[in-house]
Amino acid sequence: MTVYLLGAGPGNADLMTLKGARLLAEAQIVVHDRLVDPSVLSLASPDVETIDVGKRPGRSNNQEMINELLVTLGLEYSSVVRLKGGDPFVFGRGGEEARALQEAGIPFEIIPGVTSALSAPLAAGIPVTHRGVASGVTIVTGHSQDGSTVDFSGLVHPDVTLVILMGVANRAMIAEQLYRGGLSPKTPVAVIESAWTSDQHVLRSSVDGLASLDICPPAVIVVGAVAALDLCDLQSVASLIA
Amino acid sequence: MTVYLLGAGPGNADLMTLKGARLLAEAQIVVHDRLVDPSVLSLASPDVETIDVGKRPGRSNNQEMINELLVTLGLEYSSVVRLKGGDPFVFGRGGEEARALQEAGIPFEIIPGVTSALSAPLAAGIPVTHRGVASGVTIVTGHSQDGSTVDFSGLVHPDVTLVILMGVANRAMIAEQLYRGGLSPKTPVAVIESAWTSDQHVLRSSVDGLASLDICPPAVIVVGAVAALDLCDLQSVASLIA
Repeated sequence: MTVYLLGAGPGNADLMTLKGARLLAEAQIVVHDRLVDPSVLSLASPDVETIDVGKRPGRSNNQEMINELLVTLGLEYSSVVRLKGGDPFVFGRGGEEARALQEAGIPFEIIPGVTSALSAPLAAGIPVTHRGVASGVTIVTGHSQDGSTVDFSGLVHPDVTLVILMGVANRAMIAEQLYRGGLSPKTPVAVIESAWTSDQHVLRSSVDGLASLDICPPAVIVVGAVAALDLCDLQSVASLIA
Repeated sequence: MTVYLLGAGPGNADLMTLKGARLLAEAQIVVHDRLVDPSVLSLASPDVETIDVGKRPGRSNNQEMINELLVTLGLEYSSVVRLKGGDPFVFGRGGEEARALQEAGIPFEIIPGVTSALSAPLAAGIPVTHRGVASGVTIVTGHSQDGSTVDFSGLVHPDVTLVILMGVANRAMIAEQLYRGGLSPKTPVAVIESAWTSDQHVLRSSVDGLASLDICPPAVIVVGAVAALDLCDLQSVASLIA
């Protein structure tokens, strides 16, 4: 009995790790988030049982239930894959699941994945760090599960790119807090919708235009000078998506 | 002719992406960093030519030379893989290589990888974000290629984990700047050496003990409350390394 807390990557089976693909192919049961792409699930055996435990609006906090489910399945099956969008430890609450398994004495392994926070900007040709433009990157969530969010005014730094996950709903408030922290309203912004899927779409604006953008979640918001860059030919990136 | 700017992951072939493994297997020539693990290179065909363009102490800035080499090879071969440790856009200077290729009219693709900045902490059982402990993570380099580094005093935030790449040599200066920014000297620190390789080793301390730790690079430094956590059984993580 082992539960594998596995990073699914940003939403394209091609960006799954070799280890992750092997574990999925061998899994007896797969427990996955709502946003995990079907192409990733198709790496599992076609007759394996899959359980969608995705959190939806209105179906509030069921993390406790997920933790209990993993413990129950861990006792029953020799190989359980818990497939989490992106990376398990970047707002994935993988830590809480790991702790629940540890407390129950269920063996587990954590396997990192390609995080959307860094690969979504890349899909838009945006290098989150770039010599002379950005010497660091801060990754935050714009929507914490317990309702409280970080105060963005304390995250303004001239040399550091800001990447915001799950920030679409709160984007007007986030912009206000960034201004309070001293950020110029003309700071470039890029929004990458559904990165690395066939629905990928990139919007470019500045912070003062963020609130009025028409954004279709899930989306990653990039704030900083690098958000104005497009280093790669999107056509070539698109070949991965095809 | 296409040049693939490919993230190699943190140093274990198991954490290469499916797309990356396929590109390596089909590559006609591979240009790689010094720190790319042999297990990753072994994904390429055994008779393929590999060029190590790793920067070493004393062999100063040869990024210009690497850019030119990629352009030359892009004109000569139909499939060139430029293999970069971790993720190409997280201090990988992938942006500069992309721009050089674009200016020369060489088609290229950028493929993200699992970044050491997030996967090295994970290997030590440290969730860089954890509900109630850290609501964000900042990734910075402690050693910029042009000699200047970011001022760490501006990066202190009570809810944000700090991950420092290439910070071993400057760690005493970094600690001083963090104090100046208001960080408590007793803030937990973890140092992960050679993550996801057979040489992996984890050191734990606090910021006031960072300077006197005996660290063997390459190492990732984690600063913040999460650095005191160890959510996973290291034995189970070690099974990936075997």
